[in-house]
Amino acid sequence: MKATDITSPADIRSLSIAELRPLCAELRDILLSKLSARGGHAGPNLGFLEPTVALHYVFDTPRDKIVFDVSHQTYVHKMLTGRIAAFADPTRYAEVTGYTNPAESPYDLFSIGHTSTSVSLASGLALARDLRGGHERVVAVIGDGSLSGGQAFEALDYAAELHSNFIVVVNDNQMSIAPNHGGLYDDLRALRESNGTAPRNIFRSLGYDYVYVPYGNDLASLIEAFEYVKDAGRPVVVHLNTMKGEGYAPAERNKERFHYSGPFDRATGDSPAAPEGYTDIFAEHMIERMAADPAMVTITAGTPGAIGFTPARRERAGRQFVDVGIAEEQAVSMSSGLAKGGARPVFGVCATFLQRAYDQLSQDCCINGHAVFNIFYGGVWGMTDATHLGFFDVPMVANIPGMCFLEPTCREEYLAMLDWAIDHATGPTAVRVPGGAIVSRPGDYARDYSRTGWETVRPGAGDVAIVGAGSFLPLALDAAALMASQHGIDAAVYNPRRVDTLDPAAIESLRLCRLVITLEDNSVEGGFGQKVAAALAAGKDAPEVRVLGLPAAFADRYRPADLLASRGLTPEAIADLAKP
Amino acid sequence: MKATDITSPADIRSLSIAELRPLCAELRDILLSKLSARGGHAGPNLGFLEPTVALHYVFDTPRDKIVFDVSHQTYVHKMLTGRIAAFADPTRYAEVTGYTNPAESPYDLFSIGHTSTSVSLASGLALARDLRGGHERVVAVIGDGSLSGGQAFEALDYAAELHSNFIVVVNDNQMSIAPNHGGLYDDLRALRESNGTAPRNIFRSLGYDYVYVPYGNDLASLIEAFEYVKDAGRPVVVHLNTMKGEGYAPAERNKERFHYSGPFDRATGDSPAAPEGYTDIFAEHMIERMAADPAMVTITAGTPGAIGFTPARRERAGRQFVDVGIAEEQAVSMSSGLAKGGARPVFGVCATFLQRAYDQLSQDCCINGHAVFNIFYGGVWGMTDATHLGFFDVPMVANIPGMCFLEPTCREEYLAMLDWAIDHATGPTAVRVPGGAIVSRPGDYARDYSRTGWETVRPGAGDVAIVGAGSFLPLALDAAALMASQHGIDAAVYNPRRVDTLDPAAIESLRLCRLVITLEDNSVEGGFGQKVAAALAAGKDAPEVRVLGLPAAFADRYRPADLLASRGLTPEAIADLAKP
Repeated sequence: MKATDITSPADIRSLSIAELRPLCAELRDILLSKLSARGGHAGPNLGFLEPTVALHYVFDTPRDKIVFDVSHQTYVHKMLTGRIAAFADPTRYAEVTGYTNPAESPYDLFSIGHTSTSVSLASGLALARDLRGGHERVVAVIGDGSLSGGQAFEALDYAAELHSNFIVVVNDNQMSIAPNHGGLYDDLRALRESNGTAPRNIFRSLGYDYVYVPYGNDLASLIEAFEYVKDAGRPVVVHLNTMKGEGYAPAERNKERFHYSGPFDRATGDSPAAPEGYTDIFAEHMIERMAADPAMVTITAGTPGAIGFTPARRERAGRQFVDVGIAEEQAVSMSSGLAKGGARPVFGVCATFLQRAYDQLSQDCCINGHAVFNIFYGGVWGMTDATHLGFFDVPMVANIPGMCFLEPTCREEYLAMLDWAIDHATGPTAVRVPGGAIVSRPGDYARDYSRTGWETVRPGAGDVAIVGAGSFLPLALDAAALMASQHGIDAAVYNPRRVDTLDPAAIESLRLCRLVITLEDNSVEGGFGQKVAAALAAGKDAPEVRVLGLPAAFADRYRPADLLASRGLTPEAIADLAKP
Repeated sequence: MKATDITSPADIRSLSIAELRPLCAELRDILLSKLSARGGHAGPNLGFLEPTVALHYVFDTPRDKIVFDVSHQTYVHKMLTGRIAAFADPTRYAEVTGYTNPAESPYDLFSIGHTSTSVSLASGLALARDLRGGHERVVAVIGDGSLSGGQAFEALDYAAELHSNFIVVVNDNQMSIAPNHGGLYDDLRALRESNGTAPRNIFRSLGYDYVYVPYGNDLASLIEAFEYVKDAGRPVVVHLNTMKGEGYAPAERNKERFHYSGPFDRATGDSPAAPEGYTDIFAEHMIERMAADPAMVTITAGTPGAIGFTPARRERAGRQFVDVGIAEEQAVSMSSGLAKGGARPVFGVCATFLQRAYDQLSQDCCINGHAVFNIFYGGVWGMTDATHLGFFDVPMVANIPGMCFLEPTCREEYLAMLDWAIDHATGPTAVRVPGGAIVSRPGDYARDYSRTGWETVRPGAGDVAIVGAGSFLPLALDAAALMASQHGIDAAVYNPRRVDTLDPAAIESLRLCRLVITLEDNSVEGGFGQKVAAALAAGKDAPEVRVLGLPAAFADRYRPADLLASRGLTPEAIADLAKP
């Protein structure tokens, strides 16, 4: 059969292995066409193609349940479960998301985008089955990179106590997004090198039966292994040795670059060079600072590329750049230990992943000592998948007592705040990289950022004030200009600099206004604007306060301009608020 | 020498083992005197007495650094480091906290109260040392129970890559707070039973050298082991087989009850029976519900006693009560999987520990499906140590999109909300157990709690309104009574029921007031009152709004009445706000 004729996994179950092989080649070809045209998680999907086919071949999906960790490797799963047109037909590329999505298909059980959760979710499915007296099989797929996340360990530890069918497929492609870090990976290497026979075996240590598949991209081996374990009556790990990027030479050669790639030339693998971004600014600045101070450390939790530390820059940084693996809790608490021990840690992290370390921010950093958190991809211009939103960092982090949360409005202020946090802050400090295009606003930004104090960017006549936090300052200025030209109102514009607390003097001056508008590039619930409104409402004859910002909702694959417009975050809509 | 003459660990380093033994007996006697009089973490401290003496005997503290996980086992550490009077002299008992505390002593490196962080913090100290070119030794102490927390694994995995002195002391007393759960514990048992020689060895799997100490309460064995590893040039685990409650028969016999105990009769170990509390109400109610529905599950993450599930009740609940070990991430995500699989999960959790699963609440529950979170010890009457505060659950949880956060005001409303969450809620729902004394307010509480809608508890004349959330409703009523009697003002009082969102109709009626007072039993930053204030401020001629609640601060060992008074949370202070 042709790949494009597949409507469900049942279609492939009657095929022989000899018939499946050309089908896999066809699937890989379709996959590469879309990947090269649209970009996406190239390496993970190329490398998990044959395992996906074998899983759906052996297991009775959707009755049997498969939970994919991170679910960025599920393009082939989608192709086999009725969605191949969204890969084969360029006009339908946008019909599927890049992750499993229950709204798309009954074969997709959860919306998943963060790592290390599949074994937990699957253990719940298995326990529910046992309580119900059901008989479906439950499979959790997890990559070697995701195993460093503590939740994966919590789940493996617990699930070993299930006395029933529970299959964990470990997709060991010897890579996280970047190279793996941690003692665990010596264990996995010893298992690969011994063909699964090494006495040190973390999975057996945790109580699992264990099957090793040395050729994890070989269909026959995979089918044999899955057939062998499919009716196991107790927890078992199937350890697959796979090739990330399998079948596409540029991706096999350069695994890190092809973990996630924008569109590329299929013949060469080349992509257009990206313009300079804040990740480059951060990484170059940190390399300079680290060269001047051997006690400075830049930390990542498994996403070096997302914070600008390309392999070449990691080489330059040497041992002062530390990748703890996908392990945000470790990154945050180790930062506290580093600071206590006399080092100067800066943890570079994506807003959405900092969520994985709330308790460590609170307990280990805010109750104890100091560390700097450089937050990327916060706000509306960050990542736009429902599972990767950067809207919630401000409500989550800025309300933790003791955290100084700084929102620079431009490149110059960003570097000034980062340097202040490194050199002068005495408590934990978050610096949120501005979103959107890089804005330059030359000026003298050296100041003590621990002191509250708003910058008056536009003085105004006193009747209306707009407070534009971080990357929304340009929006505030545009709105003020429009108010002036369209309504003859000369609004003041403030840059609050810090969003975890208020400037009492600024609040007093706002009391004299008729209307105060706050703009924040994060969910308004629990955010900065509600603090401003509450402070102003605690007095008689308070001004009207309009709190504008992003929704408390998991928007999915939105266009930033649309989401902003839907929230009244355009210069026109803001200017109209001031009409008398 | 006498124990009470110890001023620093240097005092004991010149003693022979024969001299240390009677000293240990004396320390144990002092410890038991204070424990029986004041209560505290009995079992952990009795069981870690000899290891603590041996650590300070062998290591050059405070130059060498010891980080204690949870730090509830550091009473003896405090006795050896200049603070013995706070144990030996009943008039000075209050001088020390129950955890390590840098404000007390240079021997205490961090304020620690949550589990599974010591290896992370110590790895930061070790890396800082290496970057600085220092030579001090670094020791992390961690209990077997804490090893189930994912962060411990993240840290062990990372720290295996340190090429320098790093010593992890595993205090294996074969218990968490309650019995351990997870496949890991079979591994530890195999190691104990083989005198450390079993081939399955999780620590070796992670890349550590390994030393086993079969008699972990024997000073000579401990000193020998610590001397052997103290100058190790690479990471090593010292696995101690200790006895929780060592040297006190009632605590050795009943390890769970003596993990943490109130005052007890030293001769018998007996304590006065505790009056019925919400933990009993919860546990009995869940047992009844589970008996009626085999798909219902009550989950704990290592703290069954703290949610009312005594050993006898666990017996009654059978397999429908699940303890995942100290692994909150697993508990939350597994709950999502259980709900997806057709079961009905209720996770009973302390407010302070729910912090450890923010991302799982967001990703696995609020983006996906349903689960019920029954939150204990939230608010001012919860736990009063800085590391265990229940102030922050509302800002943390209620601002996650999709979470329905219910605050019952009395016993009857609590059970109605819990039943509604189990039977009717379609999304994730948190029910926060009221703090303070159990309040009964009979009435008909059956309603659809997914719909917003405030309860008008006292109609009032319309000029002043008090919104009393959850356990602060009685305070609101007391304040209203005082306003009436002292100032002749007939204030309305509302019970908002839900604090994650507002009731638009109620907000409209509040607009007509002169003054609105919100009372919430949590940190006001990012809380409910700021939402009320922001909603009211978004209009002209808004009422004055006073947002009252707990501070955004890590208050430590406070008296609830004092903290409430300091925040204006007394009937008198609230009534005075309404004076014209």
